[in-house]
Amino acid sequence: MQFAGPLALRSGTSISDYTLAYETYGTLNADRSNAVLVCHALNASHHVAGVYEGQARSEGWWDNMVGPGKPVDTDRFFVIGVNNLGSCFGSTGPMHVNPATGSIYGADFPVVTVEDWVDAQAALLDALGIRTLAAVMGGSLGGMQALSWTLQYPDRVRHAVVVASAPNLTAENIAFNEVARRAIVTDPDFHGGHFYQHGVIPKRGLRIARMIGHITYLSDDVMNEKFGRILRSAVEGETVGLDYRYSTQDVEFQIESYLRYQGDKFSEYFDANTYLLITRALDYFDPARSHGGQLSKALAQATAKFLLVSFKTDWRFSPARSRELVKALLDNRRNVSYAEIDAPHGHDAFLLDDVRYMGVVRSYFERVAQEFQ
Amino acid sequence: MQFAGPLALRSGTSISDYTLAYETYGTLNADRSNAVLVCHALNASHHVAGVYEGQARSEGWWDNMVGPGKPVDTDRFFVIGVNNLGSCFGSTGPMHVNPATGSIYGADFPVVTVEDWVDAQAALLDALGIRTLAAVMGGSLGGMQALSWTLQYPDRVRHAVVVASAPNLTAENIAFNEVARRAIVTDPDFHGGHFYQHGVIPKRGLRIARMIGHITYLSDDVMNEKFGRILRSAVEGETVGLDYRYSTQDVEFQIESYLRYQGDKFSEYFDANTYLLITRALDYFDPARSHGGQLSKALAQATAKFLLVSFKTDWRFSPARSRELVKALLDNRRNVSYAEIDAPHGHDAFLLDDVRYMGVVRSYFERVAQEFQ
Repeated sequence: MQFAGPLALRSGTSISDYTLAYETYGTLNADRSNAVLVCHALNASHHVAGVYEGQARSEGWWDNMVGPGKPVDTDRFFVIGVNNLGSCFGSTGPMHVNPATGSIYGADFPVVTVEDWVDAQAALLDALGIRTLAAVMGGSLGGMQALSWTLQYPDRVRHAVVVASAPNLTAENIAFNEVARRAIVTDPDFHGGHFYQHGVIPKRGLRIARMIGHITYLSDDVMNEKFGRILRSAVEGETVGLDYRYSTQDVEFQIESYLRYQGDKFSEYFDANTYLLITRALDYFDPARSHGGQLSKALAQATAKFLLVSFKTDWRFSPARSRELVKALLDNRRNVSYAEIDAPHGHDAFLLDDVRYMGVVRSYFERVAQEFQ
Repeated sequence: MQFAGPLALRSGTSISDYTLAYETYGTLNADRSNAVLVCHALNASHHVAGVYEGQARSEGWWDNMVGPGKPVDTDRFFVIGVNNLGSCFGSTGPMHVNPATGSIYGADFPVVTVEDWVDAQAALLDALGIRTLAAVMGGSLGGMQALSWTLQYPDRVRHAVVVASAPNLTAENIAFNEVARRAIVTDPDFHGGHFYQHGVIPKRGLRIARMIGHITYLSDDVMNEKFGRILRSAVEGETVGLDYRYSTQDVEFQIESYLRYQGDKFSEYFDANTYLLITRALDYFDPARSHGGQLSKALAQATAKFLLVSFKTDWRFSPARSRELVKALLDNRRNVSYAEIDAPHGHDAFLLDDVRYMGVVRSYFERVAQEFQ
């Protein structure tokens, strides 16, 4: 959908003439009360659920969660997926032409924040004729957007489902983002963010960024279970896997092969400037900041009911961070449900099937559905 | 000290005409029974203790641990520090000329293992006329060497002090090493490891490698305490630190500034090929491997007495890994002391002052000293 704007951004600038790519699933009911907005994290899009006809492996990124008969049941809910501004999957982003200059945005694309995305999502809802959301939901950075909805538009959201998220990034979180960004920015093919004109892509940097990210998405346990110290040669069946090749540059362990593959794949489709923008949006998110660091004060504005979910082995956004949110909401006597799921998969667990996790979300949305039936 | 060799290496090749840089502190006693060998980790050298005359900030890397009146008291012990083969602080390494070819080794420097280093250290002791060590000690990768001493030369070592170490790397440990290596190897200035001839240094890769490493050396807690979400602008006193600059490429948070500084500094003095070699030595170390993965079987060869120390906030080599070693040694009814120190500094704690840590090591070495007095 095309928007004339201008949309004012937190950085002090604004963006005009922009597109938001979105998809919807299910049917909006007569009183427009069954809409659920799903917000995405770093590496996802508006394509939340379903498949594209004739396209193999085109399942939406949360297809296990959203669909007919699924925890977020599209037989009852009207679900909206939207690609955020600055991303690289259809909405206006750094690889598009800036209509004001006629040149590709590149590194000049404005810095966008979680709050800006929420404003853009609200404008999309206006255009769709939806005043109030039955629920807003998301995992990780998507959970930050869901939380921010309850603060920016408290009267437009009845429920917020915040999964594997945090009230802000820790120093360690920022540190990992920064290393990934440095890998991209110092890649000679980055050209200060204007690589499009040079016909190159900073793939080296993107690969490193993705490898780092991937390590932080998985738990130590699941890495040991899946890969352990298994040699690549053993997997390839070349040897019984007892012999080291003694090489510093070749793949020796299976975990190396896996990470290189993930890095290569990512560098083929993800935009480098988008990576910088989205990790920065993560860094900047900190609703307590304008309240002297007091999260309870910041969340006083929220009137929605909340479901929070965390995963015990998630060391990127640990359960302790979700508990901070729970505590701050309870300080304000808000209605909060909280589940800490003992899944082994680390941060990635929010995208994966787990019977307890899916059960918790399903039950919660049954409750949400009762409010408009 | 110059060695003619050849020293047989685990990779099947060998190295001849090599130098080992070493330093000693204290005095070897008449019956040569008071020698302590200190093994270094990735980023250290033979310069364990003391200062170089007229050279500011030249303290040895374990100067708080080793010296007159210190936990490893050089008034009683004769302490030896040795730079490992393949390192870049004086011993023969990738930046030196291969006497067999007349060219700089570069990427052709043979892959070295913990076991190879121990063999080289044993040859150095032979040359120094020391048959038996009162103790061998080291932290992290240095601890692996100390452990390996007890397996390769059980009759030459009476005590092993293994600090913040592990019986092998986990998949996650290997993963972090691999990302760092990829950053170096894919730096266009690496030239397949033969960058010396091109008059360049793969500094981009070294910076990224060091930044990643540094994150894993610190605990999440200490990072939050030291840096938290403090803005660079606040530290510089430019503003009260309330305003974001809204930039994806400039330093915004203090933790970013710190990491960039660490990366820059490291890239000025550390050799890229050495980084690959030493992280690979870490990856390869796995004494249980030749015993069907059974650590207890592997450690049956050890006859030394052990002190193991771990740090509660060390998530790189967690206390659980040290406990694996303790259990395997106890399975063999070995004499083991174990201390788990509640220090906040993560893996880095092994290099830092902590009164409990220093006390444990001091007491242990008093016991060691009683055996020869």
